[in-house]
Amino acid sequence: MADFFTLEHTDGAARAGTLRTDRGEVQTPLFMAVGTQGTVKGCTPEQLVAANVRVVLGNTYHLMVRPGADVVAELGGLHAFARWTGPMLTDSGGFQVFSLGAMNQVTEQGCTFQNHLDGRQELLSPERSMEIQHQLGADIVMQLDDVPALPTTPEREADTMRRSVRWLDRCIASLPAQSAQGKRQRLFGIVQGGLNPGLRSESATELVARDLAGYAVGGLSVGETKRQMEDILGVVTALLPAHKPRYLMGVGYPEDMLTAIGLGVDMFDCVLPTRSARHSLVFTSHGRLRMRNARHARSTGPLEPGCGCYACAGYSRGYVRHLLMAGEMLGMTLLTIHNLYFYTSLMRRAREAIMAGEFGRFAAEWLPRVSKGAD
Amino acid sequence: MADFFTLEHTDGAARAGTLRTDRGEVQTPLFMAVGTQGTVKGCTPEQLVAANVRVVLGNTYHLMVRPGADVVAELGGLHAFARWTGPMLTDSGGFQVFSLGAMNQVTEQGCTFQNHLDGRQELLSPERSMEIQHQLGADIVMQLDDVPALPTTPEREADTMRRSVRWLDRCIASLPAQSAQGKRQRLFGIVQGGLNPGLRSESATELVARDLAGYAVGGLSVGETKRQMEDILGVVTALLPAHKPRYLMGVGYPEDMLTAIGLGVDMFDCVLPTRSARHSLVFTSHGRLRMRNARHARSTGPLEPGCGCYACAGYSRGYVRHLLMAGEMLGMTLLTIHNLYFYTSLMRRAREAIMAGEFGRFAAEWLPRVSKGAD
Repeated sequence: MADFFTLEHTDGAARAGTLRTDRGEVQTPLFMAVGTQGTVKGCTPEQLVAANVRVVLGNTYHLMVRPGADVVAELGGLHAFARWTGPMLTDSGGFQVFSLGAMNQVTEQGCTFQNHLDGRQELLSPERSMEIQHQLGADIVMQLDDVPALPTTPEREADTMRRSVRWLDRCIASLPAQSAQGKRQRLFGIVQGGLNPGLRSESATELVARDLAGYAVGGLSVGETKRQMEDILGVVTALLPAHKPRYLMGVGYPEDMLTAIGLGVDMFDCVLPTRSARHSLVFTSHGRLRMRNARHARSTGPLEPGCGCYACAGYSRGYVRHLLMAGEMLGMTLLTIHNLYFYTSLMRRAREAIMAGEFGRFAAEWLPRVSKGAD
Repeated sequence: MADFFTLEHTDGAARAGTLRTDRGEVQTPLFMAVGTQGTVKGCTPEQLVAANVRVVLGNTYHLMVRPGADVVAELGGLHAFARWTGPMLTDSGGFQVFSLGAMNQVTEQGCTFQNHLDGRQELLSPERSMEIQHQLGADIVMQLDDVPALPTTPEREADTMRRSVRWLDRCIASLPAQSAQGKRQRLFGIVQGGLNPGLRSESATELVARDLAGYAVGGLSVGETKRQMEDILGVVTALLPAHKPRYLMGVGYPEDMLTAIGLGVDMFDCVLPTRSARHSLVFTSHGRLRMRNARHARSTGPLEPGCGCYACAGYSRGYVRHLLMAGEMLGMTLLTIHNLYFYTSLMRRAREAIMAGEFGRFAAEWLPRVSKGAD
């Protein structure tokens, strides 16, 4: 059987590779679209494929509280449910338990919480997270980790990081060999430890000792400076094995992804391109656009000249702005399609630069372009 | 030049024909999808075409207040604006002036109103309606008519009907020979007169004397009984020339369309299939479904077994219900696609029955099927 991940080329620390799953292969660097409740908001699977989206992420917490993992399993698993034939990744549910659940209490057993829909008390333990992700059937599943509320103390940072390692062992022990749909599931561990290089090193070392399918970096993009993020990423990626994929969770801005690619990260997910679309913000190769701005009202040009996405191929800025001003769903769909296409194109361009040994030049050229503020 | 309308077959009073416009031909009986603000809510043009939608209706009032007819014209007219290459129809704007505008005052000159977005005082006269519809550039344009608020008096009914005829003459006199985009526009008059057969006859006779491209019937589906609607339709269609299309405005329910086809109507529009979709109501060949009903939660079947629409080809009822319960846009899009496909399929079936000389049997079979209430 072919390896899950093949590293094809490096350029400094930057990497180009391929992930192989039972639902097909995907190339890295990779941006994964967030499909929180079993749908990338406002898009059909065909529209996602046309935007070159190859992997969709589902949120375990959202799906466990509605419609319920058992319902998804009964309807054939998350792929069949959402008509997504490509690879999927599910998170552990832990992050949303903290951000959306009420009355949370974390013990060694797991997280007790009241779900935000009907207030029912539930327990999310490592075993329960694996059971749910087994029912959902994603190709990549994430360990449950314990994340301290910020600001935190060095002691609490160390305690939660070490608890996360103990929980990882329970995840490894409880994840069935196959998904409920009979497919292979790859478990990723999550490196924690906040902004403490010592804790990050300890976490990474513990995870690597368990020879996981892949390694995620959690707890970043939570208010630290870009320099702090770079320092921690540098510490962590230096400890991770070359032949396993690295996933920076919840990042992010195009400029942050380029920086992280330069530090050896392979995979990303973020709500930014999709959520921004619903707030009328457009990402382009020449900076950001606020599409509700009146200056677009009579513009016959596309969102981004030269862009090959569905939205840019046919619709004028003037029309798209009208849809947004009128609150029409199609406006949000078109911006979502464009932003996802921009993100996947940025990953493709980064990959091409890495393959050509020109990533440094590419990043130097693109960092200022993509980080230009909205007009 | 080929005629605008060709009557191809009759079966009793029921008719099958073809409309020819500068944007292509369409067959009748015909259901036109309502695209109020320059978009059929939640659907791309490609999704509409796949649902066999052939004509899209735009609302003059909505487009004149936002983004403005001049903006639409600057962006290439309503077809280019909305990327709809097929035929379009625009209404006069009068109906929404009454239902959405405030402080309306109607004089012989036209309707003065405050628009519902910024409260600006505007005048909608026959000339202004034609000017706006000329800028929007629809293939079929509607006269401005004066419609009495209900309940009304016989005197007011007669006055407004006769004013509508005078306004029709001003529409005829002021509509330019071509749209702002250089295409042919066909003007339809609107038969008014409420539930008074004498007034309806007078209105129809006046309109026919003006040899219009087509004839609409207005002021029905406003609370009258089905028997009253049938009686009025029978009076009106008997007076209209066979070689011109007849359009029953704002109707409606599948059973009402079948009845109207049996009385010689060719064209329909209604928000029902699209608005119902946004309220989770599905039309099928076996009655209506309320898709938020819990009994659909674990159903792996499609919305309608045997249906060939995009939604039914791939998505389970369980998934669609989940999308609706979660407030996800895709749920509304899928129901809209299905309902429009159902409506256009019903028109196709009616046409086939007319061509086969079996419309009576078809209507008798389908009326009870499509009028079954929601489960």
